[in-house]
Amino acid sequence: MELFTAIKERRSCRSFLSDPVPEDVLEKIIEAGTWAPSPMNAQPWEFIVVTGTEGKAKIYAEGERCRQWALATSGWKWLDKYRVEFLKTAPALVVVVGDPKKTGVDQFLEDGSAGYQYACAAAVQNMMLAAQALGIGSLWYTLFDRNNLKRIMGLAPEKKPLSIICLGQPAGEVSPVGRKPVQDRITFIR
Amino acid sequence: MELFTAIKERRSCRSFLSDPVPEDVLEKIIEAGTWAPSPMNAQPWEFIVVTGTEGKAKIYAEGERCRQWALATSGWKWLDKYRVEFLKTAPALVVVVGDPKKTGVDQFLEDGSAGYQYACAAAVQNMMLAAQALGIGSLWYTLFDRNNLKRIMGLAPEKKPLSIICLGQPAGEVSPVGRKPVQDRITFIR
Repeated sequence: MELFTAIKERRSCRSFLSDPVPEDVLEKIIEAGTWAPSPMNAQPWEFIVVTGTEGKAKIYAEGERCRQWALATSGWKWLDKYRVEFLKTAPALVVVVGDPKKTGVDQFLEDGSAGYQYACAAAVQNMMLAAQALGIGSLWYTLFDRNNLKRIMGLAPEKKPLSIICLGQPAGEVSPVGRKPVQDRITFIR
Repeated sequence: MELFTAIKERRSCRSFLSDPVPEDVLEKIIEAGTWAPSPMNAQPWEFIVVTGTEGKAKIYAEGERCRQWALATSGWKWLDKYRVEFLKTAPALVVVVGDPKKTGVDQFLEDGSAGYQYACAAAVQNMMLAAQALGIGSLWYTLFDRNNLKRIMGLAPEKKPLSIICLGQPAGEVSPVGRKPVQDRITFIR
């Protein structure tokens, strides 16, 4: 698929068919993620692919707990109707785990180590574009408590689960979401 | 350009020709950035394109200050030889500015608001891929103090400069950098 087509046609997909995503397709998507840039090419990521019912149920429970907590804390009414069933119904969840030790020089800066998180986010974007090109719908999900998810996934204490990508064949069309005109967001200093 | 070609052939470019990047090309690159996903489609970004000598000199001075500071703090010897001249020699610098108020539900989580930073990182990745497809070299640069850069750029107090993308025609070939085999980074939970 042409790059700009993939960039513009990618949508957040929340409704999936139950057909499994073949493992070679999952690998191709994740490999695209690993071509993202990272500080000192440290490749500060690993990927846990959850396809089993039990694993997805645990992640769903944490997502649902967080939704209820966020609703109570924020008072945002739309959260009451928002459903995170996609954490159960997506055929595959990819948990992106970052390694804060592989973050480059920015670990010495006051604002802390953003580098490994940026790299993992760039990897997620590559993966979503790759999914789009391979006919797979995707959703970038981050509403979970990192410590809880760390425990659920049995991760080493120093690792950080940063994102979950839901993957599967889209059930129906996903509506496009517009963007503000790019000119409104650019300032030139010539 | 085909998506997977762009993903695999993008390299970090640190040496640029002096030819300016036409403004319509810069706009096309930045527009690709704006198609990144963001929490609640809040599009928590703006882009400041610096092409003038004076603006680049100020950013270079901050980058060079940070390099020396990081060298002293980390003791990493390679920082002694590392040069950030690309902040002066790249024909265009794009400062990506994030808005922490546009971050979605994760602002209520203990780990703070990652969402707008992830979105801006995804936008950077889109922009680097778009640059690649348009024959423009790019570098993702983050070694600066955010408060200093905020002051240099004259940003509102609530905004955060997150990344600088150096853009220009590459001066010569950029060597490819390898990746670890994807299989080493994947775990399946079936």
